[in-house]
Amino acid sequence: MTDTPKASPTQPRRVQNITEWHSETDVAIVGFGGAGACAAIEASDAGAEVIIYEVSSASGGSTALSSAEVYMGGSGGTSVQQACGYEDTTEDMFNFLMAAQGELADEDKIRMYCENSVDHFNWLVKMGAKYKNSEYKERAIMAVTDDCLLYTGNEKSHPFREIAKPCPRGHNLEVVGDNGGPMLMGVLTKNVEKRPIQIEYNARALTLIADDQNAVQGVVVRIDGEERNVRTRKGVILCAGGFAMNQEMLKKYVPKLSVGNVPVGNPGDTGAGILMGQGVGGALIHMNEAFITLPFYPPGSLTFGIFVNAQAQRFINEDIYHARMAHHILNQVGNGIFLIVNHDDYEHPPFLNADVAGTGESIEELAEEIGLDADMLRHTIEFYNKNAAKGNDPVFHKHEAWLKPIEPPYAALNCTPGSGALYPYFTLGGLDTLPTGEVLTMEREVIPGLYAAGRTSCGLPRTAAGYGSGMSVGDATYFGRVTGQQVAARKV
Amino acid sequence: MTDTPKASPTQPRRVQNITEWHSETDVAIVGFGGAGACAAIEASDAGAEVIIYEVSSASGGSTALSSAEVYMGGSGGTSVQQACGYEDTTEDMFNFLMAAQGELADEDKIRMYCENSVDHFNWLVKMGAKYKNSEYKERAIMAVTDDCLLYTGNEKSHPFREIAKPCPRGHNLEVVGDNGGPMLMGVLTKNVEKRPIQIEYNARALTLIADDQNAVQGVVVRIDGEERNVRTRKGVILCAGGFAMNQEMLKKYVPKLSVGNVPVGNPGDTGAGILMGQGVGGALIHMNEAFITLPFYPPGSLTFGIFVNAQAQRFINEDIYHARMAHHILNQVGNGIFLIVNHDDYEHPPFLNADVAGTGESIEELAEEIGLDADMLRHTIEFYNKNAAKGNDPVFHKHEAWLKPIEPPYAALNCTPGSGALYPYFTLGGLDTLPTGEVLTMEREVIPGLYAAGRTSCGLPRTAAGYGSGMSVGDATYFGRVTGQQVAARKV
Repeated sequence: MTDTPKASPTQPRRVQNITEWHSETDVAIVGFGGAGACAAIEASDAGAEVIIYEVSSASGGSTALSSAEVYMGGSGGTSVQQACGYEDTTEDMFNFLMAAQGELADEDKIRMYCENSVDHFNWLVKMGAKYKNSEYKERAIMAVTDDCLLYTGNEKSHPFREIAKPCPRGHNLEVVGDNGGPMLMGVLTKNVEKRPIQIEYNARALTLIADDQNAVQGVVVRIDGEERNVRTRKGVILCAGGFAMNQEMLKKYVPKLSVGNVPVGNPGDTGAGILMGQGVGGALIHMNEAFITLPFYPPGSLTFGIFVNAQAQRFINEDIYHARMAHHILNQVGNGIFLIVNHDDYEHPPFLNADVAGTGESIEELAEEIGLDADMLRHTIEFYNKNAAKGNDPVFHKHEAWLKPIEPPYAALNCTPGSGALYPYFTLGGLDTLPTGEVLTMEREVIPGLYAAGRTSCGLPRTAAGYGSGMSVGDATYFGRVTGQQVAARKV
Repeated sequence: MTDTPKASPTQPRRVQNITEWHSETDVAIVGFGGAGACAAIEASDAGAEVIIYEVSSASGGSTALSSAEVYMGGSGGTSVQQACGYEDTTEDMFNFLMAAQGELADEDKIRMYCENSVDHFNWLVKMGAKYKNSEYKERAIMAVTDDCLLYTGNEKSHPFREIAKPCPRGHNLEVVGDNGGPMLMGVLTKNVEKRPIQIEYNARALTLIADDQNAVQGVVVRIDGEERNVRTRKGVILCAGGFAMNQEMLKKYVPKLSVGNVPVGNPGDTGAGILMGQGVGGALIHMNEAFITLPFYPPGSLTFGIFVNAQAQRFINEDIYHARMAHHILNQVGNGIFLIVNHDDYEHPPFLNADVAGTGESIEELAEEIGLDADMLRHTIEFYNKNAAKGNDPVFHKHEAWLKPIEPPYAALNCTPGSGALYPYFTLGGLDTLPTGEVLTMEREVIPGLYAAGRTSCGLPRTAAGYGSGMSVGDATYFGRVTGQQVAARKV
């Protein structure tokens, strides 16, 4: 039996075939985004020798491309929540997240995240992240000011507001515009650099090194065109992102994303970490799940409108988070999704990129322009208006703050998937892990020496239906830290 | 490095650690259901030495528990289709199946299946399967007479009837009652037995034997409490069914089935074949997909009714196949699904097990009893009735054969998932395979020596939304045969 030159991610090298070790460390981390950085800091602080292998020439990953809002609360509230007058409880946060993730919820991860979220906030502050004691009150996808606290999920919308007391938990860094990602990664990178952590840029992890029972003992990386066998005394942590950039994997695992038009992520989100984990028997879960969204706000005023499907019926309360809207849009039958508003209320949404498909002084005129059944559209609008005038939304339960009759002239935005309206996406499925980051087989046995965090794992956010901004960076940074602690503490 | 006593499916034995081979054959087949039987017959007929390992004490698998309808047509029609006056074309069959499977369709498998379906019919007849030249014309889940041909899918319903010319393709064996499964497996078992095929009953396959590159060279089976290492010269074919009986896997991969209440399958459907394939790097695809259904017909007369959701809105045309209805029911928000019919038209559905949740002389009375918004329910029924009277269903397009106004007194059947109404299910996700049965890695490389067919693989039917009775047994028997031919022809 001889070693083969082939090094595909799903084909681990067997340790008995390794003839030369090029380097050795306690912990090898694949990927220097939010998860990898936090794992490295904690593993190093716990005394472990750490090397980070990053395929690109700089740190950042997809965290740097995001707004880097972090979803935090519970335990009476972060200092920002308290300063803004919110006393958040762990149970409200837990109950909300459990309901939001629904049947896909990982209760252990959610419980641990909620109980330790305020500590995580304090740790980020200790690292140097700056948060202002102020609230951003617009209905928004992100704070464009340097204000901190905002609602970033479905907390205030039905059915969640009846399940848990709403509280804003999105924490935006003290930076103007959509610049949180570079700022957070700047802070974390600085912390990595000032520790005795070796960083190898332009280093592509090719495959894992494992024994016959799939216990991981190292990783093969390519640096300067040469394959190098790295022996790990404690473990390999895969923090290599999701697979938003791998067209073949997307087509195979998340075909519904074919209606998405903008992948969100960095070019390294090729699924390589997921493939490597699977190669040593790691279970992949919820590979069909994704964040997909329709950024129909801001402006918040469009929430006064109604979404109708190809049958000219409403299908969900419009005061929900934008990804929950996209999730339910994808569940509709037929071809046609329109956001109907009063023309005078119409403000151009900066992100949506949807055409005004029709306008009309009458419902019949509007229906004809957008190709919907006029009778049904008339009923839908009249039923909505009659109840909205009384502050009610009897069947869909949009919050009364967003209820008012839609009077002519009407405008309809074409949000039909595939019509050009913006549907950004990234993947949420990945390696099945314990909250400690330990990777599990399909029989839920721990694979010795293998860990994963961030979107290489299937983490806390698991469905667009219950997503909120800040859940992914929150999950990546928090569970990245826990995983770093766990691998450093491993006795071998 | 020594061999360990552990033999979990996802942990293959490495060939270099095998100290004794207890037997040797060209082809080892795991599972003696429809797929395994057909694979064995074809491999043997092509000259290969074959052993079947079956965990239970008899052949049958889940095929024997089914009606064993087989979905066949194209190429001008089977002899039964022709005798009944249908001239089916391969393109109509192909276009229908592609549309039915939608974004999940495996075009290569569908093309091959459609092109060879009449040949497959003739092969089944040659084996001894008996089909009568007659049609069963009721809207039914299965033929309860010994008639053969019936519509078993969504061929005649919108949008499929506009995509491909409808033709009945379900072929029921010449047997009265729901007894097709035992009859088909009787025929196939007899064919296996009269060939030089070794059959080991009470033999549990534990794990695969593979080299360092995951090329499969055998399988470990337990017979009479002893582990036996079986060397395969050509290959192992996993035909061990799906995972409908594995509660942990269901919860992890198909959480939506938590509303299902009757798994359909045999106790061996534990996912063991899927786990073994994954253990050597086999990719698992569409693990979240399942057949789940609501058998609301027969009687066909209930199709004159309308389904409404918790918002008292219709959501799909009611003349569709029962699993497509369940698929769309699971996509509804809120809690409440009711089938509303005219009381006098009501006939008790034999399978549905749904309570009559309400009756009423007026819509208001009915709405109150079932807890729906009376205004919306009135609109839904009146809009439907007004159009049905004219033979139209302008937004959902139920076929005019099923359109007539629903007059009082009304009856509403409670079909809410979890209310007690019957939602049977089985799994559709599994190993990614080529049409030849060769198992693929996540990078779509063939794993040498490993094959899969039936519900251990992700086959032709991939979603409840486009399912039709006879697709799974059709897939298992046809691709079982192809796989048997493929492995027998393997040059090693």
